[in-house]
Amino acid sequence: MEERVYLSMLLGMYGSLLTDKQRNIMKLYYDDDLSLSEISELTTTTRQAIYDIIRRCHKTLVNYEENLQLLDKYDKNEKLKEGIKEDLTKAKSEVKDDKILKIIHDIENKLEEI
Amino acid sequence: MEERVYLSMLLGMYGSLLTDKQRNIMKLYYDDDLSLSEISELTTTTRQAIYDIIRRCHKTLVNYEENLQLLDKYDKNEKLKEGIKEDLTKAKSEVKDDKILKIIHDIENKLEEI
Repeated sequence: MEERVYLSMLLGMYGSLLTDKQRNIMKLYYDDDLSLSEISELTTTTRQAIYDIIRRCHKTLVNYEENLQLLDKYDKNEKLKEGIKEDLTKAKSEVKDDKILKIIHDIENKLEEI
Repeated sequence: MEERVYLSMLLGMYGSLLTDKQRNIMKLYYDDDLSLSEISELTTTTRQAIYDIIRRCHKTLVNYEENLQLLDKYDKNEKLKEGIKEDLTKAKSEVKDDKILKIIHDIENKLEEI
């Protein structure tokens, strides 16, 4: 995965643990793809300070993922959910009984919320 | 939920974000139910320092949960998984077809891994 996309995903996962200012600068850089100079102007902060914040928060986010592995678990769960959805679709194509079709529908709804 | 049990669960969820020393002291206090004096002796640290570490880490763990809500999400997911398991058991009791029973079994296996 491209570094920028990966950091953007880490930011989505752990952004709530940064301060508002840090999160805002990280979003401008990783989500909105702005340059250091553009962020510097927008936030009336020196380019060097922006650079330092991004470098520090980058390290912080990677550290959170190393310890909690939420992104990793999220990816694995999404694959498992996708597999279950395919299984349910297969089952639906085999089943005629309305009672069982209703149960499959209930499972699909619960799976959406996981 | 009892405060001690809740903190023990938060420690299980976010303990990897503490230092080894902090995590060790928190485990002795919340998981093993040792007193401040016992932990003080065991770790050759003053009782006051132990107290400060526990109070600070308590705040840190609660703060992580306020921001990431992993315990909250975990509880909700477990309930949804339980619901799906019940649906699958219901479906199994209605189904005769081996092909569909096999699909249900596949779903149960994937669900265990989520």
